[in-house]
Amino acid sequence: MQKHNLKEVANAIESLYQYETIAHMNDHMFTLVRTENRTLDFHTHHESDEVFYIVSGSMKLEFRDRIIDLGTGDLMVVPKGVEHRPICTTEVLILLIEKNGTLTNENTGGTYSPQTQKL
Amino acid sequence: MQKHNLKEVANAIESLYQYETIAHMNDHMFTLVRTENRTLDFHTHHESDEVFYIVSGSMKLEFRDRIIDLGTGDLMVVPKGVEHRPICTTEVLILLIEKNGTLTNENTGGTYSPQTQKL
Repeated sequence: MQKHNLKEVANAIESLYQYETIAHMNDHMFTLVRTENRTLDFHTHHESDEVFYIVSGSMKLEFRDRIIDLGTGDLMVVPKGVEHRPICTTEVLILLIEKNGTLTNENTGGTYSPQTQKL
Repeated sequence: MQKHNLKEVANAIESLYQYETIAHMNDHMFTLVRTENRTLDFHTHHESDEVFYIVSGSMKLEFRDRIIDLGTGDLMVVPKGVEHRPICTTEVLILLIEKNGTLTNENTGGTYSPQTQKL
């Protein structure tokens, strides 16, 4: 049992696009990622809702019918089955929450690896 | 589908000790509460881990064998079955995450009511 300071953990992440799972709760995982200048492909999670929480910075979440701007302190739930893609222009620190196994290499722009998980 | 800015939602909460559920993800709920000068009784959640995320301010989480100080940006998972109690002295804004049905009047110092939920 330990606490995690999101900004301190993020500062210790060496690279952009490196997914760092910092905690597990029930069957869910909490993952931090710093990213910029990256638009992912549209994708859908069929087994889990997905939470985007913006620790710092800003990004957009694009859906087929609209684009939502997210800034520091914003939290948004993408329901399972809803097609979406993150658009990150300037640097943003994101906390993702979803069921274990939801993130894959295919839906993270080819950058997700189980080896990046601390837990 | 909508975004929620945690500080804006918190500023709209009229009273201390008022639990405001702002979002649901899978079978979990995200609840904001502002509190100060309150120490809850020791209690245990048998069916769900519980996440404390400190949006702003500071508090302590007391366990039977230690006390953990939490400050702005800290996230901590209390595993299910682990006895704990929050100690809040100065004002703190907390985001709680746990399975639906975990919060009750008994484990929130008598202040939880389903009527405070927006969703």
